[in-house]
Amino acid sequence: MRIVLDAMGSDAYPVPDIAGAVQAAREWRDEIILVGREDAIRQELAHHDTSGLKLEIVPAPQVIEMEDEPAWAAREKKQSSMHVGMGLVRDGAADAYVTAGNTGGVLTVATLHTLKRIRGVKRPALAAILPLPAGRVILLDIGANADCRPEYLHQFAVMGHIYAQAVLDRENPRVALLSNGEEPGKGNNLVKDAYKLLLDSPLNFVGNVEPKEAIACQADVVITDGFYGNVLIKTLEATAKMLTDLIRDEIKASPLTAVGGLLAKPAFGRVARRVDPFEVGGGPLLGVNGVVIAGHGRSNARAIQNAIRQARKAVEGDIVNAIRNGLTKE
Amino acid sequence: MRIVLDAMGSDAYPVPDIAGAVQAAREWRDEIILVGREDAIRQELAHHDTSGLKLEIVPAPQVIEMEDEPAWAAREKKQSSMHVGMGLVRDGAADAYVTAGNTGGVLTVATLHTLKRIRGVKRPALAAILPLPAGRVILLDIGANADCRPEYLHQFAVMGHIYAQAVLDRENPRVALLSNGEEPGKGNNLVKDAYKLLLDSPLNFVGNVEPKEAIACQADVVITDGFYGNVLIKTLEATAKMLTDLIRDEIKASPLTAVGGLLAKPAFGRVARRVDPFEVGGGPLLGVNGVVIAGHGRSNARAIQNAIRQARKAVEGDIVNAIRNGLTKE
Repeated sequence: MRIVLDAMGSDAYPVPDIAGAVQAAREWRDEIILVGREDAIRQELAHHDTSGLKLEIVPAPQVIEMEDEPAWAAREKKQSSMHVGMGLVRDGAADAYVTAGNTGGVLTVATLHTLKRIRGVKRPALAAILPLPAGRVILLDIGANADCRPEYLHQFAVMGHIYAQAVLDRENPRVALLSNGEEPGKGNNLVKDAYKLLLDSPLNFVGNVEPKEAIACQADVVITDGFYGNVLIKTLEATAKMLTDLIRDEIKASPLTAVGGLLAKPAFGRVARRVDPFEVGGGPLLGVNGVVIAGHGRSNARAIQNAIRQARKAVEGDIVNAIRNGLTKE
Repeated sequence: MRIVLDAMGSDAYPVPDIAGAVQAAREWRDEIILVGREDAIRQELAHHDTSGLKLEIVPAPQVIEMEDEPAWAAREKKQSSMHVGMGLVRDGAADAYVTAGNTGGVLTVATLHTLKRIRGVKRPALAAILPLPAGRVILLDIGANADCRPEYLHQFAVMGHIYAQAVLDRENPRVALLSNGEEPGKGNNLVKDAYKLLLDSPLNFVGNVEPKEAIACQADVVITDGFYGNVLIKTLEATAKMLTDLIRDEIKASPLTAVGGLLAKPAFGRVARRVDPFEVGGGPLLGVNGVVIAGHGRSNARAIQNAIRQARKAVEGDIVNAIRNGLTKE
């Protein structure tokens, strides 16, 4: 397998990106193609023992930075690591592309400039694989489409179903709509209209779920529009951070509770690992002609390695052809 | 002050409802009117020492139950505790109405059957006062309007601003739109259009906030549509529950961490109190001709008492007239 890793992706590029790539190359013996500024990559690689690893460098002189406006950057920085990296996948020179870079940039470069949409796909969608105590849930769209039509949500459901089957090994994935109540009549107009489409589809549609049920993994695939999905992911993250900060502060606030906190520390470690997004590493962009995994800007080396793991799984599940065939059947 | 308490509101009515009313009557010496099934109220009151308290009963033979479809129940159960209770406010026989009952029922009975909209109000909105470590934030709409137009969001902002001034004592409340990014161009079409309206308004509009900033109290008033607002509140609640359950399980999972957890227990108690929605008790329905406070179905006696406290503050702030005057000025 040949996987392209965008060396200029994360907030702290290229340090965590390259460290994660080296770990992945060592663990899985895959060929990893590092794309980005050649000198920066060589300099960083020098800090690692890369003997025996299949690491290759493909130079790309430009970088789409986090603060760049995506449409502008995709148009003006055609020599970016995103263009070059996804170009390799488009041309069949690599099997997947992984980045922790500007998400809007990934979407635009993938959809409009390199891989393009799979025939029949109305809108590609960005998915998150949520690590939850009860298991993993795929949530989409989490940011590719701020305004959606019911047909888009329907297609997100089809693509999510295919991903859950091909990559997450769910035999008959339960598909649900995120809503403000479980009853069929609940939701805004978008959700109500999508409900009817999903009811008429051959999918294993289990109806509406509220956040509580989604978090309890009562569905395998949870569908929402990209504006709300994005706010939702950020709410999960912000609530978890607020609570853990608050617990830390209150534990430190008295000597007795501080001792308790010290003794309980291994439990907090276990909690963190069970809901750590870095354990997943990244989510797939579904609906384009190639495997693309987008990770968090704050990714560390472990997150990058795990994003590469997601890419390997998506390639093994032949997700692009599965979506191509699945859409034809629908 | 005379406050109506819906004795048939909470999931476990009338037990917590009446206990909360008795506590409120004792603490603030206000007159509390208990509305609902007379025999049930008398039977429950007999378990309390009510000597010297100003408690009155106004009978209402019907109950809008949690599982009732709101429009149907509002139409068919005209003798419900909601109709009778809000009728007392409409007729000037009471200053405010408090309930932990069916939220859709409250909205429908208030808007269409009893208090009606304040002249000029396009859509009443339900607000939540979020208890956060950094302070309190008013978030609206959290469920009255699943589909909104930009003008509605604008008016929610005006009403939220007035509430924050009149009731929460914020001199120049910072108003923000909930979005998927802070930059002006971020959001779905609804948010982008509302952004322009708010920019042109005399409000202290601080732009878009992401969930992270909202939770850090970087605005006093956060505006969203009722579908997202509702899912958002439920996400906050579900995430907090998921994390606290997980922490409890992992602490119990080994003897050492269990001892640590025992020692740290007072810290967890402090955390719970600092983000406890029952400390707020309920949120106001803004835009109708009367003070209405809606609480959570799972309210206990303390939550009911605190919801009554919110009603007292709203009456003291003369919120209904403040909104009437504020809308005229806009």
